[in-house]
Amino acid sequence: MISPRTPSGVLELLPPEQVAFQRMLDAIRSGYERFGFLPIETPVFERSDVLLTKTGGETERQVYFVQSTGALEKARADGGDQTLPDLALRFDLTVPLARYVAEHEHQLTFPFRRYQMQRVYRGERPQRGRFREFYQCDVDIIGSGELSVRHDAEAPAIINAIFTDLAIGTFTIQINNRRLLRGFYEDLGITDAEVQAAVLREVDKLDKRGADYLRTTLTGEGFGLSEEVVERILAFVQTRSTGHDDALDRLAQVEAASSGSSALAEGVAELREVLALVRALGVPEDNYCLNFSIARGLDYYTGTVYETTLDEHPELGSICSGGRYDDLAGQYTRSRLPGVGISIGLSRLFWQLREAGLIDASAGESTVQVLVPQVDPELLDDQLALASQLRHGGINTEAVLDGGKLGKQLRYADRAGIRFVALLGAQEVADGTVTLKDLRRQDQFTVPRDEVVSALRVELAQPLV
Amino acid sequence: MISPRTPSGVLELLPPEQVAFQRMLDAIRSGYERFGFLPIETPVFERSDVLLTKTGGETERQVYFVQSTGALEKARADGGDQTLPDLALRFDLTVPLARYVAEHEHQLTFPFRRYQMQRVYRGERPQRGRFREFYQCDVDIIGSGELSVRHDAEAPAIINAIFTDLAIGTFTIQINNRRLLRGFYEDLGITDAEVQAAVLREVDKLDKRGADYLRTTLTGEGFGLSEEVVERILAFVQTRSTGHDDALDRLAQVEAASSGSSALAEGVAELREVLALVRALGVPEDNYCLNFSIARGLDYYTGTVYETTLDEHPELGSICSGGRYDDLAGQYTRSRLPGVGISIGLSRLFWQLREAGLIDASAGESTVQVLVPQVDPELLDDQLALASQLRHGGINTEAVLDGGKLGKQLRYADRAGIRFVALLGAQEVADGTVTLKDLRRQDQFTVPRDEVVSALRVELAQPLV
Repeated sequence: MISPRTPSGVLELLPPEQVAFQRMLDAIRSGYERFGFLPIETPVFERSDVLLTKTGGETERQVYFVQSTGALEKARADGGDQTLPDLALRFDLTVPLARYVAEHEHQLTFPFRRYQMQRVYRGERPQRGRFREFYQCDVDIIGSGELSVRHDAEAPAIINAIFTDLAIGTFTIQINNRRLLRGFYEDLGITDAEVQAAVLREVDKLDKRGADYLRTTLTGEGFGLSEEVVERILAFVQTRSTGHDDALDRLAQVEAASSGSSALAEGVAELREVLALVRALGVPEDNYCLNFSIARGLDYYTGTVYETTLDEHPELGSICSGGRYDDLAGQYTRSRLPGVGISIGLSRLFWQLREAGLIDASAGESTVQVLVPQVDPELLDDQLALASQLRHGGINTEAVLDGGKLGKQLRYADRAGIRFVALLGAQEVADGTVTLKDLRRQDQFTVPRDEVVSALRVELAQPLV
Repeated sequence: MISPRTPSGVLELLPPEQVAFQRMLDAIRSGYERFGFLPIETPVFERSDVLLTKTGGETERQVYFVQSTGALEKARADGGDQTLPDLALRFDLTVPLARYVAEHEHQLTFPFRRYQMQRVYRGERPQRGRFREFYQCDVDIIGSGELSVRHDAEAPAIINAIFTDLAIGTFTIQINNRRLLRGFYEDLGITDAEVQAAVLREVDKLDKRGADYLRTTLTGEGFGLSEEVVERILAFVQTRSTGHDDALDRLAQVEAASSGSSALAEGVAELREVLALVRALGVPEDNYCLNFSIARGLDYYTGTVYETTLDEHPELGSICSGGRYDDLAGQYTRSRLPGVGISIGLSRLFWQLREAGLIDASAGESTVQVLVPQVDPELLDDQLALASQLRHGGINTEAVLDGGKLGKQLRYADRAGIRFVALLGAQEVADGTVTLKDLRRQDQFTVPRDEVVSALRVELAQPLV
């Protein structure tokens, strides 16, 4: 007898939680499709040489390699073989997207608008809230040669639509621009890209270590910045706009304080255009702001960058991030493929929301909408015909086939989150009716048999308050 | 520069095909949910000791092992290490289901009705139509201790509902019963289970090798059956009922010819009950038949077994199969968990349908329902507000942000399978209207701006003939 255990570091859900998770996946997919994105899926594994083209980042150290039984045996028989296995599990959806676009470039239409919602794999040390397998839900717009900055306004509009639908609380989409960052530091005389990156890494510790740590570090050896410069940096990175007009004012101030960096001017112009279109796309101004501390992946993003936080739960960190990049697939093709995209790490988000008590899956609704209990074994054919009628009407229906006391069947429906029970006893069969019990509203009513589907549709369409 | 290539043996789709594939996945999922099944998902990898409990089948020879970079380096440094890697990719959804049910047994409600639609992995030699990664769409009902044979009637009802929805042609669900098979061979004096299995394996070659091969083999050394017995076997396995009453007649004939096997009597009784309930569940009698040649997995299924074939394309083989088993998870738990289930191998089915010309994804509809072209760059804000209005109304909408000639934008919509174009020029803005072009019907009409969502909903709800 083998003990049945899931591997460590995965999020396996019981059915009520899986239903809640699936509803979130569906809401995200529906949001991506509403904005005109097309689905793609890629294989869980890629060729190792294709996946591992960049050298030695932390993520690539965590890759999982895949070997068939035959390949494993061969590698072991040939003990000196130190070549990498042929296949490896994807560690994100960006590298597979780059491979996909480069491979199928001539069969795609640009700008290529794709979404992809699949699991990715990282051989991390297991710890609370860190998963070795987790869903990413990505959306990207890829241009061929060029892509207007207008598309950068779509990401906040998508985030706004999806997180409004998900109804997990108010949120703020924080927007910044890497060009503006670069220009700001150039203006301060910090022109070297590596020094800029080092400063940004320190600035990123502001929340954790505090302003004094930053003052000491940046004025100390290694950086040697003046106190005045450090105060300007601190004021800059603590900028958060409080509305659309305030955001425009902040940009005007940054521009006015500039000693003429063209990168800063470009960043400001891009942010102005993005903000204008975000408003035109109907995003409420309470839901977005400028935040000059956002930098994201330093070696990848080049323009607009985004993070999203829950207003009531800032401790969850960013729940949806992304940005603009200059070139998606330089390692695979000579074509320049600029793009902009965002990603939702749904497994982690779901786990965080559950931990924070914002999802109570045990109290949720089942995917099953109606239970047809076995009232009388003699009426089995009628019971099954009713179940078929409901299913044919598009209503998710479970029919009890194992019998048992009616009270127990009703308790099962209640515990399982099945809202309606459709009772068919001898009286109902004689009358040509069905008795419907609404377990949520604790209500009961009898309808003619041929109206049962439309009656349930009306009930199911009304939101429970 | 690395050449971007997918690994061999996977089915990677371009967006129009992915949309068609996703529609099939959605139809299957919707079918499973209509019959009251709950979703589960399991990790792509299982612990090797949990996955590989049974010894040495062909499938287990094809397993893919998974190792993190660290584990791989450690195994290589320690050259003598011949233990199996800790993790392996699932090769089907049955073993993960068994592990899931055994692990979470006390948190599940029985009968446990679950569906699961995920990819599985087999390190097969690549060949046309054989995939190393493919979707399985499984549905199972698991009892705790016992499960009424009535549930065996649900499988044909589900198959009927889903393949009717998929609309890939007429189909026949072929039903048999392993107990009836066992009893039939017992009646012929073939009582040894291994000899029975050997006979069944030969009988399975009937279509390929023909009746004469079977006569020679079964009367020859090794089997030594009489000619009369072989003729009875041939007549039996060629039985196909031609309607509900004919199926009942066939069962009566088999029963009458029996020399008293209790297994045969049980099999006949089970099939009678299943057939009666399949009819009660509204499955048209043209869509199911008895086929006494169906055996399925010899060491797993114990009662009712199913295969499904497309009437116009029998060469595709079974497109949905399954059956009843006595014990799901004997390797993981002492609880007896009988069940019944079916599986659709969607990647292979999709590939077969495409090869047979039954899916023409290139002519399909996009998930994008409306394109809002850029008629005039000056009207960008109006264009975006219209796109937002449509999206808010639940309509999948792409807005052109890169400009270009209107004719080119319309041709893009047409080629991409986007049915509607919503035009907003200076005239429309002045009039408070939108001009809608239906590219499929080659029709055009103007509607008030505040009625555009409802007008499109009406159009989209009408099927194109």
